[in-house]
Amino acid sequence: MVSCGALHSFLFEYDTPRIVLIRSRKVGLINRAVQLAILAYVIGWVFVWEKGYQETDSVVSSVTTKVKGVTLTNTSTLGARIWDVADYVIPPQEENAVFVMTNVILTLNQRQGHCPELPDDKTECKVKNDCVPGYVSTHSSGIQTGECVPYNSSSSIKTCEVFAWCPVEDDNHIPKPAFLQEAENFTILVKNNIWYPKFNFSKRNILPDINSTYLKNCIYDSETDPFCPIFRLGKIVQAAGQDFQEMAVEGGVMALQINWDCNLDRAASHCVPKYSFRRLDNKDSAHTVSPGYNFRFAKYYKDSNGTESRTLVKAYGIRFDIIVFGKAGKFDVIPTMINIGSGLALFGVATVLCDIVVLYFMKKKYYYREKKYKYVEDYDLVSISEGRVKAKLLPPPNLERFRKRM
Amino acid sequence: MVSCGALHSFLFEYDTPRIVLIRSRKVGLINRAVQLAILAYVIGWVFVWEKGYQETDSVVSSVTTKVKGVTLTNTSTLGARIWDVADYVIPPQEENAVFVMTNVILTLNQRQGHCPELPDDKTECKVKNDCVPGYVSTHSSGIQTGECVPYNSSSSIKTCEVFAWCPVEDDNHIPKPAFLQEAENFTILVKNNIWYPKFNFSKRNILPDINSTYLKNCIYDSETDPFCPIFRLGKIVQAAGQDFQEMAVEGGVMALQINWDCNLDRAASHCVPKYSFRRLDNKDSAHTVSPGYNFRFAKYYKDSNGTESRTLVKAYGIRFDIIVFGKAGKFDVIPTMINIGSGLALFGVATVLCDIVVLYFMKKKYYYREKKYKYVEDYDLVSISEGRVKAKLLPPPNLERFRKRM
Amino acid sequence: MVSCGALHSFLFEYDTPRIVLIRSRKVGLINRAVQLAILAYVIGWVFVWEKGYQETDSVVSSVTTKVKGVTLTNTSTLGARIWDVADYVIPPQEENAVFVMTNVILTLNQRQGHCPELPDDKTECKVKNDCVPGYVSTHSSGIQTGECVPYNSSSSIKTCEVFAWCPVEDDNHIPKPAFLQEAENFTILVKNNIWYPKFNFSKRNILPDINSTYLKNCIYDSETDPFCPIFRLGKIVQAAGQDFQEMAVEGGVMALQINWDCNLDRAASHCVPKYSFRRLDNKDSAHTVSPGYNFRFAKYYKDSNGTESRTLVKAYGIRFDIIVFGKAGKFDVIPTMINIGSGLALFGVATVLCDIVVLYFMKKKYYYREKKYKYVEDYDLVSISEGRVKAKLLPPPNLERFRKRM
Repeated sequence: MVSCGALHSFLFEYDTPRIVLIRSRKVGLINRAVQLAILAYVIGWVFVWEKGYQETDSVVSSVTTKVKGVTLTNTSTLGARIWDVADYVIPPQEENAVFVMTNVILTLNQRQGHCPELPDDKTECKVKNDCVPGYVSTHSSGIQTGECVPYNSSSSIKTCEVFAWCPVEDDNHIPKPAFLQEAENFTILVKNNIWYPKFNFSKRNILPDINSTYLKNCIYDSETDPFCPIFRLGKIVQAAGQDFQEMAVEGGVMALQINWDCNLDRAASHCVPKYSFRRLDNKDSAHTVSPGYNFRFAKYYKDSNGTESRTLVKAYGIRFDIIVFGKAGKFDVIPTMINIGSGLALFGVATVLCDIVVLYFMKKKYYYREKKYKYVEDYDLVSISEGRVKAKLLPPPNLERFRKRM
Repeated sequence: MVSCGALHSFLFEYDTPRIVLIRSRKVGLINRAVQLAILAYVIGWVFVWEKGYQETDSVVSSVTTKVKGVTLTNTSTLGARIWDVADYVIPPQEENAVFVMTNVILTLNQRQGHCPELPDDKTECKVKNDCVPGYVSTHSSGIQTGECVPYNSSSSIKTCEVFAWCPVEDDNHIPKPAFLQEAENFTILVKNNIWYPKFNFSKRNILPDINSTYLKNCIYDSETDPFCPIFRLGKIVQAAGQDFQEMAVEGGVMALQINWDCNLDRAASHCVPKYSFRRLDNKDSAHTVSPGYNFRFAKYYKDSNGTESRTLVKAYGIRFDIIVFGKAGKFDVIPTMINIGSGLALFGVATVLCDIVVLYFMKKKYYYREKKYKYVEDYDLVSISEGRVKAKLLPPPNLERFRKRM
Repeated sequence: MVSCGALHSFLFEYDTPRIVLIRSRKVGLINRAVQLAILAYVIGWVFVWEKGYQETDSVVSSVTTKVKGVTLTNTSTLGARIWDVADYVIPPQEENAVFVMTNVILTLNQRQGHCPELPDDKTECKVKNDCVPGYVSTHSSGIQTGECVPYNSSSSIKTCEVFAWCPVEDDNHIPKPAFLQEAENFTILVKNNIWYPKFNFSKRNILPDINSTYLKNCIYDSETDPFCPIFRLGKIVQAAGQDFQEMAVEGGVMALQINWDCNLDRAASHCVPKYSFRRLDNKDSAHTVSPGYNFRFAKYYKDSNGTESRTLVKAYGIRFDIIVFGKAGKFDVIPTMINIGSGLALFGVATVLCDIVVLYFMKKKYYYREKKYKYVEDYDLVSISEGRVKAKLLPPPNLERFRKRM
């Protein structure tokens, strides 16, 4: 079906659209102005500003942390007591976060047994019948036995007896100011390794030109030491616009954000981390439940009889989430060609726009239309000879088109 | 090189393609139909359905959890015992997950020493020579001493003696039903803070219009309480089509998925979380190893002599992974222009298609071809005068083209 | 405003650009060559190589791990001691990581009290006045009391006395070789469940055709067992080009990377994980702080008097981060149309290029220009009749254009 002649014409003929060149200052300038605007958009915005010639990839990250600091407390219950890293960082290591305890409610020497429940509107009772044996709710300390007993010797309140770790925890009175208020001066070292898989580019937040002498003593500061990986806890909280001592009472969650937006078409040394800080939990207690941040854990002991006892710790503190995010960009042909192609297609808009001006709004519009359009009227075939087709014209088209078309 | 004249013509001339207008109902309708289809695709699908005018960003998330609930167990080994949050959530806090122990094998009072290994086909022996001193495999409880000793007084099985924490753990018989079957009624509070860095938009899953009275007592339900952040464990498992009591025996891994797909061109109040649940571990034990989910940990004690002992806990339970994902979209010029540009380019397809119909399939195709194409024959240059070039025509082209071309 | 006639012409007329066909072997071949290059780029590179017809999605992952192995140590301080999973995996479970302790500095029987600080250039003193009461720095073990006391009985060094957990930890001498050097033979089982939300496709790294008999005993090998999910620790470190025993002394961080790049247009069985290994921490101690990887935790005990004591453990070890990443691609109309549209627009480049060759560089350029361009000269309107506009021509354009335009 594809003959020699067709192949000959396909390969050795070149077709190009026929153009009518209209000499008009106004339209010429409009045309060039629109084309210039499109060019400025494509080159200026798409390529230079938004880097439309680049392929992007998301960061893959790994973080290790280390907290340092000791503090002394002195209370009637515990006496003078030192708290170091092993005491207040719980659990001792996590992957992308670190919890520093700032406030605590300790319930010492809990043993399994029967004791009165903590008083509230559900647990207070007057007589035994107020308490249902076996009753337990999600807020209970234990299973109710059915007895109604005095809560403590110094008051007349009676609550339902429960089988639980006794004595039950009383968390109604949180220490104010925070128990470990000195935590403000503790420091956290953050080591972060990032990788962009698509470009096989990796880097650490401790930059290659930083030496270990500097690292031993520096503290991060957004102005003077922007690449020191050691952060003072109070400064982190302050940089997020919060007050450390206020946050330390009920705890909270802080984000230490490390942003790695890198342009990999430049030298690798330009790819550096940007630190920022943000509070994640909701301060507004009217629209939240369980404000601040706390959790319970226990230390278990065995006495010489083999009876197990425990110290229940309700730990309030600040959890620092190390959030690493960012995108790398590197030149790639595909997004470049897509944007060039779309840009070329947009140039067609200039032609459409100027055509509308020329053919509908100018005084000489009918003249231009005659030059641009060639009407193929309907015809009856008469003969084909000598490479030309002869046809008998049908009546000419209605000239109303010319005047009414708008 | 760029003369004044060239600049003049560049700025003040406007070129537009010359068009031949074919009056034919059939082709006209085909043309408009194809153009309409392309327009419907671009506007309907690309822009309205797939939001092709938007830039997208992935979510950055932080999660805190809190479990509540107590349960009572009563066995011959342990007696009556209460289990509360500090007992069954291990470790007490994690970043995007929480483990709730539902079943347990306890090996109490382990001390370092010599004792018989657990019997299996590798450790059973008849005589001393069956045991190799110093032998240890990855499944061993300890290092073999070389002795072959009775496993226990009530049977005749003998196994190789090992230096290990003694007595060795016997995990062949998992309690059925699960030891902490009441875990089904425990509740978990999930607080989630999300952020879209590109648009600097952040939100929490506890919506601003929810007050704390409602939050104290609500339980999540996909129909009645879709925004309550407190989930009953049994309901999570049931929503994933699983049976809690069956899963509680050997443990498992559940995903609590929070989907934040937000259209940031609308009000922020429309950006709400969607919760879904999925089982992650493989139930089918024929094609997996170590089915369910369990891990071992120990509680260490010291007796009055200073000798260390421990309780080995093989904890089976359900780990709830809080998986937060989603994309935000917001209007941006670049993807809009890319899609407009590609759409404009696609309009060219309508012209190509109709050209094929007109020039090859219609009765009047030769007539139309004559109107559309202008053949520039080869020529010999004769003269250039009066702004027109005169050329002597070469022999006309082979007319076979007209009849054979298809 | 839109009249019947305009609607009639809009629907039933078809406009197509008029084309001039230039018969020239050279230009024809150039044109087809450029078009072929563009077609090869669009089809070959964009569609086949880069899969430009696919929509992509990032992986959502969940990981569980389990370590197995026991080892025996024998030192003068501790005697013969067995270490099993509950002893060296701290914390017992994490979400995407697992820490295996390989070296340790134990400080036994610490009690709160007064004792000399560890000697260094800041804590050594000669007389009492060298020590400031209440002084504490981030590197201190405790709060200085102001006394200057001998460090130990066997030397003449005196350091400031501190209130701290006594005796203070001496971490100047790390055991070499590593204490738990046998950790090289431990194994880690990694179970990974991935999900692509956009395509609702999920899969596990334990492939469906692997049976549990194989899984009980296999060890991962990149050549012979590439899908076995059980990894020997020494092999992981070796595959990253590191030496396990060297890394075990001060610890480190290893990445176990699981890559899920899937083409979801193919069968699901082709979507398999690819494992790779990488060291994340910086070996070069000249440009880092706190080399290796270590953290401190404590085991707490109570003696019969109720006095709390603890064993401080400075755990050095290797943290294995399980990093799961990957993209899935599936056919989607939008990226296909975008790339087709951009490709079509790029075809316009062929025309522009050949136009330049034809109109400016060929011998017959003036002839071709005359055929392609139709100059619309300025005119004065004379009359409009019989569907044609008569105009009086203004003087012809300056013919200099023809010769000078380049």
